Amino acid sequence: MERSVFFISDGTAITAEVVGHSVLSQFPLTTTHYTLPFVESETRARAVREQINALHQQSGVRPLVFYSIVTPAVRHIIEESAGFCQDVVQTLVGPLQQELGIAPDPVAHRTHGLTATNLSKYDARIAAIDYTLAHDDGISLRNLDQAQIILLGVSRCGKTPTSLYLAMQYGIRAANYPFIADDMDNLSLPAALKAHHAKLFGLTIDPEQLAAIRDERLSDSRYVTLQQCRMEINEVESLFRNNNIRYLNSTNHSVEEIAAKIMDVLGMSRRMY
Amino acid sequence: MERSVFFISDGTAITAEVVGHSVLSQFPLTTTHYTLPFVESETRARAVREQINALHQQSGVRPLVFYSIVTPAVRHIIEESAGFCQDVVQTLVGPLQQELGIAPDPVAHRTHGLTATNLSKYDARIAAIDYTLAHDDGISLRNLDQAQIILLGVSRCGKTPTSLYLAMQYGIRAANYPFIADDMDNLSLPAALKAHHAKLFGLTIDPEQLAAIRDERLSDSRYVTLQQCRMEINEVESLFRNNNIRYLNSTNHSVEEIAAKIMDVLGMSRRMY
Repeated sequence: MERSVFFISDGTAITAEVVGHSVLSQFPLTTTHYTLPFVESETRARAVREQINALHQQSGVRPLVFYSIVTPAVRHIIEESAGFCQDVVQTLVGPLQQELGIAPDPVAHRTHGLTATNLSKYDARIAAIDYTLAHDDGISLRNLDQAQIILLGVSRCGKTPTSLYLAMQYGIRAANYPFIADDMDNLSLPAALKAHHAKLFGLTIDPEQLAAIRDERLSDSRYVTLQQCRMEINEVESLFRNNNIRYLNSTNHSVEEIAAKIMDVLGMSRRMY
Repeated sequence: MERSVFFISDGTAITAEVVGHSVLSQFPLTTTHYTLPFVESETRARAVREQINALHQQSGVRPLVFYSIVTPAVRHIIEESAGFCQDVVQTLVGPLQQELGIAPDPVAHRTHGLTATNLSKYDARIAAIDYTLAHDDGISLRNLDQAQIILLGVSRCGKTPTSLYLAMQYGIRAANYPFIADDMDNLSLPAALKAHHAKLFGLTIDPEQLAAIRDERLSDSRYVTLQQCRMEINEVESLFRNNNIRYLNSTNHSVEEIAAKIMDVLGMSRRMY
């Protein structure tokens, strides 16, 4: 079954996308997506309504619309479209209002925008990105006392994307350190890292997937053989076990899952941005 | 008014967090957050239920619970807690099922996990992060034909976090290029960039905010004075205008907003991950 899907918002449309995507993932549907952020004026809303209606006319089926718009006049224009419209936020606001016994006070852009109350958190997040970039791939082992997480693993097992995700989404200062091929003959944990045992977390990966990733990305074919990958992973997993470093296998997991798992295992509380 | 809030899921809990955060942003509440991902077993669910009930007993008010759990037996344990429970996904699934006339087929971990259908998209996303890191801060002007966006601006106006966000969330290969103080005497657009006019996008920032950011982050105080910041921004904004480069002011906007705006202005379609 095929449907057009709209994600519409007066802000970034991230909430509409995330919710809509979750809901749609439960149905065996083939979809074409249109994300329309910053629908703040009635003029723009009318143009969007025409776009929805035109697709309805062409296809004969109603487009699905996941939306979140604060201003009633703008919202109503979308609701009058031919689409099947679901308000991803208001649907839950009503029941919560009853529970709390206080009226909602909706302000556009509050979810993914900057306000006086989240500005300092936002600043901390940018600082975390700076820190993580400066401590990527073992570039610097200085200031590790400022790190909140230090990821360890062989080259190309997912340390960099995971570190950046932790910094970007959660404002976590995440350093990472690679064990490279030259280390393998006598693998040991550098003293600079040992001193921060509670922050250490290992990533490992299936040798077959590692070989495939390296085959695509590395120019030096010596490091690509399955034999080499197996050897490196064996050595590094032994090091994790011998040093009581918690670790997980990143194979077939997204950075979202790996990051959530690490924070869960390390018992870190998550901040939303 | 104060409440404890739980975000609970059998996956990463990102959806529960995003929705719950949006809904809560509409109320003047002081909240304490608990995010509990990977609640997949009945044992874990019962422990979570005890945690909710204990907080209820202590505080005398019901904790708010935003949850999304696929397995009914696990979900029901959470629903039996003393919390005020809202299912952030199922609430919209019911009406959609009626519209589509097909039954949902829920699978845990489908939203933010890896599946056969999104694995190649995920690979593209990791490649985009690699590309963006290799083309951060003007490190390399080679292979700009592979860039989808090239951000321009003075030092510390938000190019790096925005580029990384575009790569991380949307799989966009985003290069960025800084105009530094030494360029200012005779500012011009490098030929390597001119060749890619359609991909160029400028960031600018209020001089006061730039001076404050640089004061915190740069060791060299010459670049921190308000006069220097004003001069650089004037020069760079002139360059944007003279070269017909679209640009926006990043002051008081989050990376989410800046990224959404850039994609909107450049007419790029957004892919969800």
